[in-house]
Amino acid sequence: MILLFTDFGFQGPYVGQMHAAIRAIAPPLPVIDLMHDAPAFAPRASACLLAALASEWPVGAVVAAVVDPGVGSPRLPLAVRAAGRWLVGPDNGLLVPAARALDPAPAWYRIAWQPSRLSASFHGRDLFAPTAARIANGDTGGLAPLETLPAGAGWPAEEAAVVYIDGYGNVMTGLQPRPGAVLVARNRRFDERRTFADAARGEAFWYKNALGLAEIAINQGHAASRLGLALGDAVSWA
Amino acid sequence: MILLFTDFGFQGPYVGQMHAAIRAIAPPLPVIDLMHDAPAFAPRASACLLAALASEWPVGAVVAAVVDPGVGSPRLPLAVRAAGRWLVGPDNGLLVPAARALDPAPAWYRIAWQPSRLSASFHGRDLFAPTAARIANGDTGGLAPLETLPAGAGWPAEEAAVVYIDGYGNVMTGLQPRPGAVLVARNRRFDERRTFADAARGEAFWYKNALGLAEIAINQGHAASRLGLALGDAVSWA
Amino acid sequence: MILLFTDFGFQGPYVGQMHAAIRAIAPPLPVIDLMHDAPAFAPRASACLLAALASEWPVGAVVAAVVDPGVGSPRLPLAVRAAGRWLVGPDNGLLVPAARALDPAPAWYRIAWQPSRLSASFHGRDLFAPTAARIANGDTGGLAPLETLPAGAGWPAEEAAVVYIDGYGNVMTGLQPRPGAVLVARNRRFDERRTFADAARGEAFWYKNALGLAEIAINQGHAASRLGLALGDAVSWA
Repeated sequence: MILLFTDFGFQGPYVGQMHAAIRAIAPPLPVIDLMHDAPAFAPRASACLLAALASEWPVGAVVAAVVDPGVGSPRLPLAVRAAGRWLVGPDNGLLVPAARALDPAPAWYRIAWQPSRLSASFHGRDLFAPTAARIANGDTGGLAPLETLPAGAGWPAEEAAVVYIDGYGNVMTGLQPRPGAVLVARNRRFDERRTFADAARGEAFWYKNALGLAEIAINQGHAASRLGLALGDAVSWA
Repeated sequence: MILLFTDFGFQGPYVGQMHAAIRAIAPPLPVIDLMHDAPAFAPRASACLLAALASEWPVGAVVAAVVDPGVGSPRLPLAVRAAGRWLVGPDNGLLVPAARALDPAPAWYRIAWQPSRLSASFHGRDLFAPTAARIANGDTGGLAPLETLPAGAGWPAEEAAVVYIDGYGNVMTGLQPRPGAVLVARNRRFDERRTFADAARGEAFWYKNALGLAEIAINQGHAASRLGLALGDAVSWA
Repeated sequence: MILLFTDFGFQGPYVGQMHAAIRAIAPPLPVIDLMHDAPAFAPRASACLLAALASEWPVGAVVAAVVDPGVGSPRLPLAVRAAGRWLVGPDNGLLVPAARALDPAPAWYRIAWQPSRLSASFHGRDLFAPTAARIANGDTGGLAPLETLPAGAGWPAEEAAVVYIDGYGNVMTGLQPRPGAVLVARNRRFDERRTFADAARGEAFWYKNALGLAEIAINQGHAASRLGLALGDAVSWA
């Protein structure tokens, strides 16, 4: 199973080109569009989401994660093996929290093989997708152990900020839930509810969402716009 | 073949998580994103669309349908066998018209098995996707015959309302076409055309759309915004 | 490998219905959503994009391309064999540049078989998707040599216009890059950069994009809105 996690959106040919690049190498494997609207150009927030999703990947899964504002610069391309799963992506911290959530001592590699075509602007298609497909095929030949720490190695496990706003307007934070605690954002306080069905219509609350993160929501309402919350806003426990 | 029909949108990780949950159980089967912008929180309109799509499912197809404003409440999770196809989803009427369109006497079941993880807010990933995958694998072990009628059992086959507005602004109704009849919506009358190419540029008309429903459209125009039509608006034959 | 290229968008059931139609005929083949926001009703601009993508298709690939404002009119349905790849789609020029980019002498066919169901408005589902699946299965039985030239046979290889604006606001032109040249659009001049990382933040430039086309962009900015560029705008070399 190969999973794709990017900030490309479904517009344009970019996701399709990644699929085609994978299929040319690993035709019969399932390829899953895990998420393509990760916070754009924001490796830290994207890394929180990716880590929250990691518990769902079966052993053998390979994740190609591309949130890569430095494409075309000399940042390294990385691969990491963590508890039998693999992730590939840029060396900007994106892979760190997920690898650490899976395995306290993941094995980091630099992608050392050279694809026959490497555009300056689309390493997702030209390098990360093919590398994911090669690894999924069992071929780890082009990887060299990373001799330094990856970027973002010092990032804490939690991020006290809004890391994603979904299509319903629900506001995901990078915080692990604290049962019974009060969450604060933009000087407003939010009590915990178990789920939407436990909140009155229009009531704002926080709950442990299905990714395991503390999320601010309004029952049948668009929390982000009603509460004026945006990506990157600070949050905290009261 | 497993087909997904939800109101989740393609934003966020939700659809991808459903795919991953299915692939963990039924790796080699095709999984198709039939539609992910079903009318949100609107089981009745969504049910009309689902029924209109049912004639295209081959024998053996399994459909996971999730339009589920009651997630987290005690509403039952259901499965239904209809003419060799299966549907799984919440007991809010969503599955009823499609099951009845396929089979006058579908066999209703309560999903009785318990997944190892059941979040309060995402039964699509935790219950309906895995159940669809199990059924597609031929495993119907966790199903118990439903001893009551499903919710929505009394819904009529047609819905005299706008049930969907597509990306072009075309306005689908829940009515079966009546050849030669005049359709009325918001006090405007619409004549029938066979297809867009038979209408003058800018002309508003109704036609039998490719799902078999009566649809109001404007040749090379956005009917919903030009005519002021919205989801749920009443429609009728003159 | 079957690739889908349409202007349908991911809204509604249309793309899903094409997938289901293909899976009913060719269940185990990979089916890739190459692009579903091709310029709507614009075969010429869409054809430029399709041609730019063609170099990535492996031998044996079958592309179903549907940008088809004439659906329901008498325009022919076509298939073309080019250097071991196949394309199917309407006879409005859409397939011409891609076929010619692959093969100086592609073999054109009229789709002569009749599907059991042919709606007036959705040949993507009823004719082009099934034909692509049949060809991918090795069945070219329903094709008849085209005895005339296809529409658009005289189109030049390049299009001196904006042919696509992506989700980041990058502005693709239909021009092949000219290293070191100055690109002009709306009376503004743009110098070449190798990639985004070589441009100052906020600087507008052109570069050879990952599809091999000349593209106008702004580093960390939305070029289309900042520069007032829209689909179809003329561009030229200074």
